[in-house]
Amino acid sequence: MVEIKVKRWLKQSFIMENFQFQCPTRIVFGRGVENLVGEEVKKYSDKVLLHYGGGSIKRIGLYDRVVESLKSVGVRFIELPGVKPNPRLSLVRKGIEVCRSSGVDFILAVGGGSVIDSAKAISVGVPYKGDVWDFYVDRAEPAEALPVGVVLTIPGAGSEASSSSVITNEEDWRKLSLTTELLRPRFALMNPEVTFSVPPYHTACGAADIMSHVMERYFTNVRHTDLTDRLCEATLKTVIRNVPIALREPENYDARAEIMWASTVAHNDLLGTGRIGDWATHVIEHELSGLYDVPHGAGLAVLFPSWMRHVYKHRVDIFVQFAVRVWGVEPDFQDPEKTALEGIEMLKSFFKRIGLPTTLRELGVPEDRLEEMALRCTDSGGSKIGSFVKLGKEDVLSILRNARG
Amino acid sequence: MVEIKVKRWLKQSFIMENFQFQCPTRIVFGRGVENLVGEEVKKYSDKVLLHYGGGSIKRIGLYDRVVESLKSVGVRFIELPGVKPNPRLSLVRKGIEVCRSSGVDFILAVGGGSVIDSAKAISVGVPYKGDVWDFYVDRAEPAEALPVGVVLTIPGAGSEASSSSVITNEEDWRKLSLTTELLRPRFALMNPEVTFSVPPYHTACGAADIMSHVMERYFTNVRHTDLTDRLCEATLKTVIRNVPIALREPENYDARAEIMWASTVAHNDLLGTGRIGDWATHVIEHELSGLYDVPHGAGLAVLFPSWMRHVYKHRVDIFVQFAVRVWGVEPDFQDPEKTALEGIEMLKSFFKRIGLPTTLRELGVPEDRLEEMALRCTDSGGSKIGSFVKLGKEDVLSILRNARG
Repeated sequence: MVEIKVKRWLKQSFIMENFQFQCPTRIVFGRGVENLVGEEVKKYSDKVLLHYGGGSIKRIGLYDRVVESLKSVGVRFIELPGVKPNPRLSLVRKGIEVCRSSGVDFILAVGGGSVIDSAKAISVGVPYKGDVWDFYVDRAEPAEALPVGVVLTIPGAGSEASSSSVITNEEDWRKLSLTTELLRPRFALMNPEVTFSVPPYHTACGAADIMSHVMERYFTNVRHTDLTDRLCEATLKTVIRNVPIALREPENYDARAEIMWASTVAHNDLLGTGRIGDWATHVIEHELSGLYDVPHGAGLAVLFPSWMRHVYKHRVDIFVQFAVRVWGVEPDFQDPEKTALEGIEMLKSFFKRIGLPTTLRELGVPEDRLEEMALRCTDSGGSKIGSFVKLGKEDVLSILRNARG
Repeated sequence: MVEIKVKRWLKQSFIMENFQFQCPTRIVFGRGVENLVGEEVKKYSDKVLLHYGGGSIKRIGLYDRVVESLKSVGVRFIELPGVKPNPRLSLVRKGIEVCRSSGVDFILAVGGGSVIDSAKAISVGVPYKGDVWDFYVDRAEPAEALPVGVVLTIPGAGSEASSSSVITNEEDWRKLSLTTELLRPRFALMNPEVTFSVPPYHTACGAADIMSHVMERYFTNVRHTDLTDRLCEATLKTVIRNVPIALREPENYDARAEIMWASTVAHNDLLGTGRIGDWATHVIEHELSGLYDVPHGAGLAVLFPSWMRHVYKHRVDIFVQFAVRVWGVEPDFQDPEKTALEGIEMLKSFFKRIGLPTTLRELGVPEDRLEEMALRCTDSGGSKIGSFVKLGKEDVLSILRNARG
């Protein structure tokens, strides 16, 4: 891979990182775009797997519109519903079987991040001779994938244009991710109206997920990332402004549109260009939602402020910038740490304001398995997670304990 | 095209526009990336047209590195140097002939916007039976194009990831543009070090071009474009901060890197998603640089503040936002127009500060053909240009006259 060669030239200093960026996913955004799904699918296939979750897409009429559009251009489809939040490996394996036995060569995901991640897992599993879980535990690297298309219903995960998929294995409740360019969907049809019916709590969880995708990239050791710093701040401010509006007025098209587009921009890797992200909070959260099946966004809302308090002294400057530029905190030039802490408090109180838990207690997570989670995500204490500050088992445990409430 | 169908649902109100966005250009960014050019080209072709301008790429050693990289992977090439700023139709036609007669099926542009635009024109001309100029005067639409790759040397035009090409016809000195997704380069190799030798004046011209690409999109009649407003502001602020640094310290990698990446982000269409751009200033400037062969960025620096003063009353709110968020002007709540005008003055004085002309006089453009230019860009006064405010011949003339100085 070219990546290796490029990386040779760096690491000497704190300059902007060399990077590669390509996001070929075709975005079609706006009112009514779900009706174009047949036309878009037809470019790739005549026989697809229609993958979705429960009944919500039927309740809002989206299922009917999608089916009608597919039929109108003669695309046949086999249905595989039943994707749950924190999507399961067993359904992925079933989807792989269905695709193989029926000769399906395209997967259409109609749903949010869970449905899309499940579809992506199926897409790499079908052409692979071994078990798809191999890819998630780093036992194998995928060489090919079926194409995937998306009709997005819940913004947050950003999976509609990302290169990753997160799957939960019910055998041991490990929740693991796979990242490869093969996983970028071919297209994403995004109609903000479809999100009018997303309930307040899930709207807020989506917001925390979007903000976390930005913040995981924002807090970096790389210096001189002026443009991407500002693009990150722009995306955060958009979410902060529009989520309270969408909660007050669920059918406010403009607010829903801003949130939906922000979710894609936050996670298609543009905001990470030239920087090295951290991702420790995501790793810890995956233990949480793997074991307790809590919504990913809610877990992130609990953990992010606690992570921040654990690491902010490592680079007070970037936390001051976060406080001042994102939250409008007036900087305390005599005592920058105060400003840094004020920014963290602003984040926490924003999460509260939009109805999210900010403690493990509120999240309904008991205290008895914190140590187990800290061990699991650090390979029994033998490895470290994160990049901004490398965290060992004791660090993770401390972050979890400080999040108890 | 899907575009037409999507557009049916809009236009009822001021909501965010439906949009499609896809920028498949692969960006490889950082120190040394020009040495990967052979590897990148090889994915597409074994025999390419090597298209460039004058001697500058030889002086800085870039030509040798590119040639060595091509040779190392066995890619043969035919050279076509000689691209001038405001690239000429005659050389495009010559390039088309060279490609046809030698069986070249890939065009490698090593240069700035002029070289890339010329390469793009050749790429659509080769497979077309008629004259390539047909595409620029809307007599025909291109159906196919040869693939184009880029090694970027001057940031500004954004052509490395854009869907457009601007060519000057020396027969009547018309400078016209063509926009189609076929024109997106397959890859762009961007090493900020290569731009260390860009002279101050051309660095500043590039900055004005980048800022103009953002501002053409920013000033829109579409409401509720919160995310893209902020992404635009982020990009402008990055340029405003880093260009003075690059002028003071031409070999400051960080500043050059920020400017280079901003140039791509400003014009790959992300910042236009959901909005309708204006582009009147670009149209007027094309008359200027078509007739007088002035650098595009310098022409824009002269015209943009004049255009702004002509139209700002149409939407004082967005000009206030521009002044406050981009330039840090303290808003005058009692008299918002004052704030709007202050923002325009800030832009003008920034252009002055970085060494650009802000009057036609300084640009060396005489007064005798202003009326002719106003007529030419409005189809002899029969049509209007722009979208934010539609401008007729008298408007254009007024903007030109107010820019005289």
